[in-house]
Amino acid sequence: MRPMIYLFGDSITEESFSNGGWGASLANHFSRTLDVVLRGYSGYNTRWALKVLDKVFPAPEGGDGGVEPIAVTVFFGANDASIPDRCSSFQHVPLHEYKQNLHSIVSCLKKQWPTTHILLITPPPIDEDARLRDPYVENSMGLAERTNEAAGAYSKACVAVAGECGIPVVDLWTKMQHLPEWRKAHLRDGLHLTETGNRLVFEEVIMTLKDGGVCLETLPADLPLLGDIDPKDPLKAFQ
Amino acid sequence: MRPMIYLFGDSITEESFSNGGWGASLANHFSRTLDVVLRGYSGYNTRWALKVLDKVFPAPEGGDGGVEPIAVTVFFGANDASIPDRCSSFQHVPLHEYKQNLHSIVSCLKKQWPTTHILLITPPPIDEDARLRDPYVENSMGLAERTNEAAGAYSKACVAVAGECGIPVVDLWTKMQHLPEWRKAHLRDGLHLTETGNRLVFEEVIMTLKDGGVCLETLPADLPLLGDIDPKDPLKAFQ
Repeated sequence: MRPMIYLFGDSITEESFSNGGWGASLANHFSRTLDVVLRGYSGYNTRWALKVLDKVFPAPEGGDGGVEPIAVTVFFGANDASIPDRCSSFQHVPLHEYKQNLHSIVSCLKKQWPTTHILLITPPPIDEDARLRDPYVENSMGLAERTNEAAGAYSKACVAVAGECGIPVVDLWTKMQHLPEWRKAHLRDGLHLTETGNRLVFEEVIMTLKDGGVCLETLPADLPLLGDIDPKDPLKAFQ
Repeated sequence: MRPMIYLFGDSITEESFSNGGWGASLANHFSRTLDVVLRGYSGYNTRWALKVLDKVFPAPEGGDGGVEPIAVTVFFGANDASIPDRCSSFQHVPLHEYKQNLHSIVSCLKKQWPTTHILLITPPPIDEDARLRDPYVENSMGLAERTNEAAGAYSKACVAVAGECGIPVVDLWTKMQHLPEWRKAHLRDGLHLTETGNRLVFEEVIMTLKDGGVCLETLPADLPLLGDIDPKDPLKAFQ
């Protein structure tokens, strides 16, 4: 059976198999080695994620934790960081609770699957002007429902949790802002990712997995690769 | 547990999670309802596929067929149809054996999983001129290693097998050629698919699945959708 990676997160995970998405790129990269399993839930924050954790990753009746994935990406915070008194306030989770929830998610996963690589991803930066232009959000007060400052605070908290748990983290909030034109280059609507933004997430995730020993060089290929099949005696490869 | 769809086939399946690929599009389309599991093996023909079938879909020791997928796409023929005395001859499988092999694959899957929707996909048409320009293939005799005529014969055989087995088929060879500029529109290198070609496969597969009752309208969503969560009392959705 092939090892698998779960992608657990909010809309930025749920839509990660759209054109050029980071999830699809992972599945393509690991096409003969790993199964990439999508568990993205649009709009969810860590409070809701914690409520559904045992449904997302059910422990089978036998008592063990089920098939242990090789890795899980945990990518929440963009909704937690919604500003409390603005139009997405129902998704807001206070910063201290966000930290606590992330800790709980990580420790539940570690308890269920002790050897699984758990990888945190911080929320991306926010382009507030683009949020104000988003026709799907009622920012009627002229104030964006998400701010880059708040996203930064949640991002720092996420990095801190990773440190406290001794697990790797992709600090997307910081990495994306390295590019001067990050607002247009990485963000589609001030929050969700462009193809370039998706590319960055993909590259950071495979680099972080590789640091943990999960890479094409170490994973066995599922069944003989074409290059390893002898054209003069192809069936030998299948004996 | 979410239902799953296996994509079983050759390189056109293996690369189906690349940018705009039909596999990624399926995973995106069914992002909250189904797991799309990639089992693509570049270069494989039905003879090799049959040799590895019990490894690709292992029956667990308990004796039953394991978790029954909701559907399996079986997409072989492009390699079987390689011309016997040209440079890809080691991938060639005679037409009568191709038919027999497809029958065997379908009947093994039906035996293991009696209620799974099995969906055949014919090989795509071939643009021979583009094949001659492919730097990865040694068409030194000036004759393409695959021809559209051969692909058509294997495609017709595939359609016949579907009819004999009473299962649906996507006749890609015919459908792609409906477009006058099919060579450039659907094919990247005379054999593998462009984004437009991938789009056609995606649309045909979801239409065929829908005919079998597998569609967003009938599949339950995994966990409450954001639109079904009451902003005034979000936690009610998770009780």
